[in-house]
Amino acid sequence: MKLGSLKSSSKDGRLVVVSKDNKKMVPATDVAENLRTALENWSETRPALMSLYEQLNQEQISGEEIKPENFHSPLPRSFQWIDGSAFIQHIKLVRKSRNAPIPETLHTIPLVYQGSGDSFLAPTEDIPQSDPKHGTDFEGEIGVIVNDVPMGVSPEKALDHIILFVLINDVSLRGLAAPELKRGFGFVQSKPSSSFAPFAVTKEELGGNWKGGRVHLPLLVDFNGVSFGKAGGGAMHFHFGELISHAAKTRRLTAGTIIGSGTVSEEGKGFSCLVEKRTVETIQTGEAKQPFMKPGDQITIRMLDQNGENIFGTISQKVMKAPI
Amino acid sequence: MKLGSLKSSSKDGRLVVVSKDNKKMVPATDVAENLRTALENWSETRPALMSLYEQLNQEQISGEEIKPENFHSPLPRSFQWIDGSAFIQHIKLVRKSRNAPIPETLHTIPLVYQGSGDSFLAPTEDIPQSDPKHGTDFEGEIGVIVNDVPMGVSPEKALDHIILFVLINDVSLRGLAAPELKRGFGFVQSKPSSSFAPFAVTKEELGGNWKGGRVHLPLLVDFNGVSFGKAGGGAMHFHFGELISHAAKTRRLTAGTIIGSGTVSEEGKGFSCLVEKRTVETIQTGEAKQPFMKPGDQITIRMLDQNGENIFGTISQKVMKAPI
Repeated sequence: MKLGSLKSSSKDGRLVVVSKDNKKMVPATDVAENLRTALENWSETRPALMSLYEQLNQEQISGEEIKPENFHSPLPRSFQWIDGSAFIQHIKLVRKSRNAPIPETLHTIPLVYQGSGDSFLAPTEDIPQSDPKHGTDFEGEIGVIVNDVPMGVSPEKALDHIILFVLINDVSLRGLAAPELKRGFGFVQSKPSSSFAPFAVTKEELGGNWKGGRVHLPLLVDFNGVSFGKAGGGAMHFHFGELISHAAKTRRLTAGTIIGSGTVSEEGKGFSCLVEKRTVETIQTGEAKQPFMKPGDQITIRMLDQNGENIFGTISQKVMKAPI
Repeated sequence: MKLGSLKSSSKDGRLVVVSKDNKKMVPATDVAENLRTALENWSETRPALMSLYEQLNQEQISGEEIKPENFHSPLPRSFQWIDGSAFIQHIKLVRKSRNAPIPETLHTIPLVYQGSGDSFLAPTEDIPQSDPKHGTDFEGEIGVIVNDVPMGVSPEKALDHIILFVLINDVSLRGLAAPELKRGFGFVQSKPSSSFAPFAVTKEELGGNWKGGRVHLPLLVDFNGVSFGKAGGGAMHFHFGELISHAAKTRRLTAGTIIGSGTVSEEGKGFSCLVEKRTVETIQTGEAKQPFMKPGDQITIRMLDQNGENIFGTISQKVMKAPI
């Protein structure tokens, strides 16, 4: 099943069911006003949404044509957005770029941070840049949305709490991250609002590509219209169950919590963010040539299945000078 | 004006207006279903809520008797909970306890972290402890709730966005904080759900005690029925406008965002958390004698005005062994 949220006067958007081929949609507000409330009552709403999805795919409902610009992120806001950093290659390159030490627990304890979920950007919304010195960067990620997760859940049981999958652009300001993390309290200024691909999908849409708690497909990242990265989700060191279990060690997580994989990263498969390329350039030539994003630069992020079908729709954003 | 949220089947609680003397309440769900939606439409809801408050205080409405156990935290959940650490004395003592360096920017850049707002504890709810080795501690704090704050707001203009004041118990797990912060991504496991005093109040309730962006009243902290701290909110180094401006440097904050002061701390006025006392003991005697919280230990936090009136109601929580 594929679900999306239309932009609306409500800060939570308006729920629609999207056809498997991403061409048609049908309003689902009779089932739940928005995706957030659908997730909070998933055992009741899921069968009704599935029924709409099947009818739409079988053309028993004609549906309306999809216009990507009308879509917000599947959850335009969430009470909890937690992001991991589960690709070891990314951690190594980013820490090197900041001259920060690699944690001794690199392979044994997941790196996870608390993000800000009060206002995500839409999939095609401009990324505001108030100062080019902030070093605006994208980060292509895979994410999951869970139902209520009890405190102390095991990594294996945590996998059963995943209800939806999403793609994420975790916008990062590299010029602010190094001094901010050095102060010791994690990211605030250096992680502004993230954006998501328009469609959140259930695991059936991933088929055999969802196994071992990882999504085994390449994440296709294009920068200014040129292929920039094709790293595979299977290269994730800690799987999603381990990230969820880590986050739920001392507290429960409520339905609608989003957990990100961290930047998808795999050696030899290009890059899902600019800073990795800059670090490799510095190692190889002593100098970073790849600039950070400037107004007008465009990032697109998507994932195709074996048949070339776009699973989540496409994140396509430009940077714009912030009007302040 | 004083507002509160009754526990209900909704995860956002049910909005009530509370009388100035904390004795009576009147349902306000005709104005807004809950405090979150009231804050999201504050210019429309404020006059109607004020009218209820005046009628209740003048006994034009009889109201219902307050039962503290029926109250949830004013916002049972929030799309954003950001906590500062604006009392220098606290930073110095806690960093010493962790053997962590004092940031070079101690007096110039506020320490602020992104917290988890998806499920706060109620004012009288037990604090679950899954492992005594986690070093369960309380932190008495003052907080503000803002309306929509634009990106790049100045510290002075940020003060105009404050609509409500709250008291907070920012529950902290000291045994997990040191290794977690050392990994570099801030707090996740070491900051489980916080709780709040039952009543959120507008600035009129603070009168002249609200000045210079600080609440100039002592925070009364009792541990197991004995006075533990009376530190003054006026000792705050960075004021609330500076904390909000810091958090909004690269993104907007949406209505209902909560910003905490960090542990209220003032030399010679006792302590608003256990770890400060332990650090002072270690400095003075070479050994920390004060244990962290164990099941059955009780923390109460409140603030009285010059007439001895309890402004926010009382946080009163015990630790209990978590049922996992």
